[in-house]
Amino acid sequence: MFTGLSAFPLTPLRDDRVDECAFAGLIERLVTARVDSITALGSTGSYAYLTPEERASVARLAVEHAGSTPVFVGVGGLRTSHVLAHAASAEAAGAAGLLLAPMSYQPLTVDDVFELYRTVTASTELPVIVYDNPGTTRFTFTVELYARIAELPGIASIKIPGVPANSAEASERIAAIRAVVPEHVTIGVSGDASAAAGLNAGCDAWYSVIGGTLPGAALGITRAAQAGRAAEAVAESKRLAPLWGLFSEFGGSLRVTAAIAEHLGLAPRNCLPLPIQGLTEAQRDRVAAVVGELGLT
Amino acid sequence: MFTGLSAFPLTPLRDDRVDECAFAGLIERLVTARVDSITALGSTGSYAYLTPEERASVARLAVEHAGSTPVFVGVGGLRTSHVLAHAASAEAAGAAGLLLAPMSYQPLTVDDVFELYRTVTASTELPVIVYDNPGTTRFTFTVELYARIAELPGIASIKIPGVPANSAEASERIAAIRAVVPEHVTIGVSGDASAAAGLNAGCDAWYSVIGGTLPGAALGITRAAQAGRAAEAVAESKRLAPLWGLFSEFGGSLRVTAAIAEHLGLAPRNCLPLPIQGLTEAQRDRVAAVVGELGLT
Repeated sequence: MFTGLSAFPLTPLRDDRVDECAFAGLIERLVTARVDSITALGSTGSYAYLTPEERASVARLAVEHAGSTPVFVGVGGLRTSHVLAHAASAEAAGAAGLLLAPMSYQPLTVDDVFELYRTVTASTELPVIVYDNPGTTRFTFTVELYARIAELPGIASIKIPGVPANSAEASERIAAIRAVVPEHVTIGVSGDASAAAGLNAGCDAWYSVIGGTLPGAALGITRAAQAGRAAEAVAESKRLAPLWGLFSEFGGSLRVTAAIAEHLGLAPRNCLPLPIQGLTEAQRDRVAAVVGELGLT
Repeated sequence: MFTGLSAFPLTPLRDDRVDECAFAGLIERLVTARVDSITALGSTGSYAYLTPEERASVARLAVEHAGSTPVFVGVGGLRTSHVLAHAASAEAAGAAGLLLAPMSYQPLTVDDVFELYRTVTASTELPVIVYDNPGTTRFTFTVELYARIAELPGIASIKIPGVPANSAEASERIAAIRAVVPEHVTIGVSGDASAAAGLNAGCDAWYSVIGGTLPGAALGITRAAQAGRAAEAVAESKRLAPLWGLFSEFGGSLRVTAAIAEHLGLAPRNCLPLPIQGLTEAQRDRVAAVVGELGLT
């Protein structure tokens, strides 16, 4: 289940409330495109900004609209007891798995993080994806910590940050992780620009920001890599270079992806939670131009 | 009001609930010691980990037990609408000022942060302290941004990170900030180890972690610096070097300060919110030895 393309939809807000219609529309779009799984309330889904009630309601909506597509739900939080509550509400909503990032305010130690995963896996029946996203959590996993956590019963997958573009280096990186985690634990790449490199290097899954809004583009890369057509996956990723360029230039994938969703009418204007502002008019024009140029829909 | 020693008490938890008796005891200890102000729900007070209800209740308790000592309340949050709600509850509790850090999950831009301060100052009658704490917020202010935010009506003070130990460099740093912010905006140093240097270099206030648990030690440094006895302030800070050493060695001031409060019977064992673990037994022994050696009570 933790293989192929897992698409991370936005959770669009309208006037500081979850826009349930827009969110349901995003989920249905992913189902129609036939992604392998949907991860609601990832970083792209603004989980960190939502109340427990909003998170429970978004999890329910995702499952309701996903049909037979498995839904994973992000349950990260700053306090362990809050994470356990999010996990319980995701489970009640019918999630097929949980995504857990070690959110931090005070920097966390390796033992803090291990104990967090131990506590959560001990309290839920659901498989858990370890979410390594140092750009938002400011916690850096080591391969040793992957190994230690992956031994916990209930750990199903590890979502790793982007891999090197160079294919030998990417393969070396994945092999190093593969060597220390149990066989049943899948490895999924994130960092959309390096997804083709990651899949070609042996990643089992792509946990994808852009897949949540532009599933067709993400599936093109995924299916090519899965079929062993490595060069085609790389070529398709290269074709999207102007998009990856906007991610770098405009401060990450989230603001650009939100602008794309807004441009395509999939989300209301300024759908991100404040204080995160949307792109400027000039930046939006650049995004629209790239979307047009690459034929993204 | 935003001068002298502002003491930051812990918010001790017992079995994952705020220990109201222990918290009230910490507040009364600060009043007895005659600190100049109390900042409840600072980083040391674990604001980022508490629910809105817990935060409102802690703010009320602090004001109730502080008598005539002014109480400032930390109102930071990841989402602007949540910050506004915390500000309203702090105001209702009788806070004399608000402390606001730009908490982040997705990295924030300068414009995001400016707009956050603009929105909050526009919505409250209370003076606001700008809280620059890159170690926890992962947002780095520039002096230009201090200047831009300090022009907002309602900004009363800026809590800056530690200053260089070298007195010429510290003075240069404070002078550079002083030159661009309005005269009515005070500058307060944090980073306890550099407080003497900061106060001697012209800071108006010390926003102090250790002052929330060991107010006597912090007042010794503060009163010497305020009276122009710079060498005495430095000597007292140097005497506490073993304490500052533990802060560096054990991953910051919070875990060490919690261990001190627990050792002195001011807080229950393991009073920090999980996943933040308390110090190990061996580390606690080191803390107890330093507390004894320095005669800290």
